[in-house]
Amino acid sequence: MSVFRVGLLGHGTVGSAFARLLEEHAGRIERTTGLRPELSGVLTRSRGDSFPELLERSDLIVELIGGLDPAREYVLQALRTGRHVVTANKQLLSQHGEELWEAAREHDVQLRFEGAVAGVVPVIRVLQESLAGAVIDRVHGIVNGTTNFILTEMGRTGCAFADALAEAQRLGYAEADPTDDVTGRDAAAKMAILARLAFETPVHLDQVRYEGIERIQPDDLEYARELELGLKLIGTAERIDGDGLAVGVYPAFLYPGHPLASVNGPFNAVTIESEAITEVTMSGPGAGGPQTASAVLGDVISAMIPPASTPPALERLRIVSDVRSSFYLHLEVADEPGVLAQVSQVLALQDVSVKSVVQKGMRDQARLVMVVHPVLESRFAAAMDMIAGLPIMRAPPRAIRVIEEQFG
Amino acid sequence: MSVFRVGLLGHGTVGSAFARLLEEHAGRIERTTGLRPELSGVLTRSRGDSFPELLERSDLIVELIGGLDPAREYVLQALRTGRHVVTANKQLLSQHGEELWEAAREHDVQLRFEGAVAGVVPVIRVLQESLAGAVIDRVHGIVNGTTNFILTEMGRTGCAFADALAEAQRLGYAEADPTDDVTGRDAAAKMAILARLAFETPVHLDQVRYEGIERIQPDDLEYARELELGLKLIGTAERIDGDGLAVGVYPAFLYPGHPLASVNGPFNAVTIESEAITEVTMSGPGAGGPQTASAVLGDVISAMIPPASTPPALERLRIVSDVRSSFYLHLEVADEPGVLAQVSQVLALQDVSVKSVVQKGMRDQARLVMVVHPVLESRFAAAMDMIAGLPIMRAPPRAIRVIEEQFG
Repeated sequence: MSVFRVGLLGHGTVGSAFARLLEEHAGRIERTTGLRPELSGVLTRSRGDSFPELLERSDLIVELIGGLDPAREYVLQALRTGRHVVTANKQLLSQHGEELWEAAREHDVQLRFEGAVAGVVPVIRVLQESLAGAVIDRVHGIVNGTTNFILTEMGRTGCAFADALAEAQRLGYAEADPTDDVTGRDAAAKMAILARLAFETPVHLDQVRYEGIERIQPDDLEYARELELGLKLIGTAERIDGDGLAVGVYPAFLYPGHPLASVNGPFNAVTIESEAITEVTMSGPGAGGPQTASAVLGDVISAMIPPASTPPALERLRIVSDVRSSFYLHLEVADEPGVLAQVSQVLALQDVSVKSVVQKGMRDQARLVMVVHPVLESRFAAAMDMIAGLPIMRAPPRAIRVIEEQFG
Repeated sequence: MSVFRVGLLGHGTVGSAFARLLEEHAGRIERTTGLRPELSGVLTRSRGDSFPELLERSDLIVELIGGLDPAREYVLQALRTGRHVVTANKQLLSQHGEELWEAAREHDVQLRFEGAVAGVVPVIRVLQESLAGAVIDRVHGIVNGTTNFILTEMGRTGCAFADALAEAQRLGYAEADPTDDVTGRDAAAKMAILARLAFETPVHLDQVRYEGIERIQPDDLEYARELELGLKLIGTAERIDGDGLAVGVYPAFLYPGHPLASVNGPFNAVTIESEAITEVTMSGPGAGGPQTASAVLGDVISAMIPPASTPPALERLRIVSDVRSSFYLHLEVADEPGVLAQVSQVLALQDVSVKSVVQKGMRDQARLVMVVHPVLESRFAAAMDMIAGLPIMRAPPRAIRVIEEQFG
C-alpha cells in the first residue's frame, strides 16, 4: 500500500480541523487516489520536530501557521526541495506570492491555496483553470464573512455597528481583535490574490486601497432598505481603459438584482464578469475553520490525483424512486358543503397530512389550495388518483413539489 | 515553437463559436502554456476528412457533434489512441459515461466535459476536484435555461406556458422543437452526470425520473408569488437513508431564501450541500453557444497545462488608484434656506453631477441624502472636503459608493 505523507504546519482552529478531516476521509481518499494519506508530523510554534525533519518525511506540506515569518521560509524550503505545498495564508500570498509561485514553477511542484480566499467557495480553482481562456473584465467579491454578518445584522435589526460586532463576537463570527476584518484589510489581501489571478498582473497588498465598515450608520442601512439596495463590503478588481487595473475594498450599495445583493450573513461570494461569459457567481459559507479545512483537503487530494480523472464509480448506492416530498395541491372543486371533508378524508387514508389549506373563489371558480407535509410520493400519487375520481372535482387535480428549508 | 493540435468534431452553434474563440485566444494561450493551439481539422456530418485522418494529426479531440452515434465511437477511438477528449455531449455521458471514463483511465488520458452541464458554471470541475474530499448529501440544480426563462416569464407577466414558450423561441432561448427542454429530459441527462460525480455511483439517464413544465398554470405562479415561493424546474440528486440515491427533475416551489429561488431568466445554478461545508452555490448564464464554447476552451487549456500552476504574471497592467464611482452622500445640515444651493455649488465646482436628492427631517434632524453620477474619486473627495468646511454642516459628511448595473 502506497502512502502519501502530509506534513502539517500549525495546529490552531483550521489545522486541527484539517487533521481530523484527513483522518476521517483517509479511507475514501485511498479508494479514489490509490494512495493512503497520512499525517507525517505536526509542527507548531511551541512543539513538534524541527522543520527539516518534518520536510524530510513529507510528500506535501500543509502550511496553516499564518503570518509571514517563518511561514515564508518554510514554504520556500518545501517548494525548493520538491514538495507540493497547500496553504491558506492570504497575508503570505498577497505579499510574497510572486516569489512563491516562481519557486513552484521552477521546481515543478504544486502550490495550491483555495483556502486562502472565500473558504470552500472554489474561486481560486475557477480563476486558474475554468476561466483560463476568458478575458476577465471585473471581479466583485464579498470575501469577508465577519463584515457581511455585521452589515446583515445592522440591516435586519437597525442596531449600531458596535452592537452588531459584539453579536458577531458572541457567535464566533468575529475574533476578539476584529481590526483586520472590520477595516477591510483582510478582504484587501484576498482581493490582491484574486486580482493577480484574474488579470495576470502582480498585485501587492500595499497596492489595494481599502476602507472598512466602522463608520457605517444605521440610517445608511435604512436608506438602503428604502431603495432596495444591498449594502455590502465589496472587494473589486477591475480593468480600467484597457491597460489599467484598480483593486479596492469598500462599503458599497449594490443595485437590486446584483448577484451579490442577496448574499447575507457570514457568507462569501464572488462574481466574475467577462464579455465572453457575461458573469459567473459562486457563493458559500465564509472561512470558518471547517470550511477552510475542507478547501485545504480538496487541494491536498488534487495534488494526489491526475487532473480531470473521473475515478471508477466506487459507490453503488441503490437508486431510489419513491422518496418523501412536500406538495402543493391545487384542486378545482364544486362550490358545495362537505368538499373539504371529502378531500381531507382521502388524504388521511393515504397518510397525507395537511400543513395549510386555503379555499378560494366561488361557484365555478371554487378552488382548494393546500400544502401537505412530506410524504412518500407513491402514497401522495395514490391520494391524487382517488381525488381525481371524486365527483366534486371540476378538473384534474394539480400538484407541485415544495422544497422546504433543511439544515445539514 | 511547439504546437498543440486540436481536432474538432462538429461545426454547429457551439462548434463554430469554439473555433472562433480558439483562434482569438491562441496568442494568450501560448503565452500561458508555452504551446500554440491550432485547429488541425474540422469534421462534420457532411464534410471534412475521415475521422482516422483527423485523429492522426490531433493531440486532443473536441466532440461537439452531439447525439450517440457516431459520437460514442469517435470518442472511444480517440481515447484508445491516447488522445485527450473534451466534449459537451450530455446525452452521450448520461448513457455511456462509465464506458468512456473507463477508457480514459485505462489509456491515461483526460476526458473533460464542463460544457455538458450548466454552460460556463464550473460545476463539473468543482465536484471532481474542489469537493473531492467532501461527503455530499444533496445537489439541487437549475440546469436548463430554457425552462427557467419560461417560468420567469410566466411569473413576471402572468402569461400562459404556450405564450412564454413562444417568447423564448423568439429570443433564441428555446429551439424550434423544445421537447427535450420542456419535458425535463435535457435536465435529466445533466442530473445523471452530476449525480454520478457527487455520489460516485453509476447513474444512467433511464434511472432519472423527470417531469416537465408543460402543465404549469399561471395561477400556480400567482400562488408562488403570494407566498414568496420561487417556482423552478429543479434537478435533485439526494442521498437517502445512507445507501440510497434519488435523482429526479420536476417543477418545485422553493422556500424563500433558498439559494436557487432568486435565479431568474435563462440562468443556470447548482447548489451542493454537504455537512462539512454546508452549501456552495454556483450560477451563471446557461448553455448558449458562446458560454458552452468558453467552457470547452477552459477544458482544452486545462488539458494543456500542468495542474494548479500559477503562470508567471504576463500582464503588467498599471495599478490605477483614481477611478470613477457613483456615490451616496449623507449630509446632516442646518435647517435653513439655501443649504441645497450651497452644496450643489460645491459639487458642481468639482464636476460632481447629482442624480437624485432627498431632503429629510427638520431642525436638528435635517439631512440631505443624495446620489451622484459616476465621477473621479479624487474630484469627489475634493468636493467632500469643501462640504465638510461649510458652516451649514452639523456633522462630517458621509459617503458610500454605489455599484450600478453595467452591461458587458
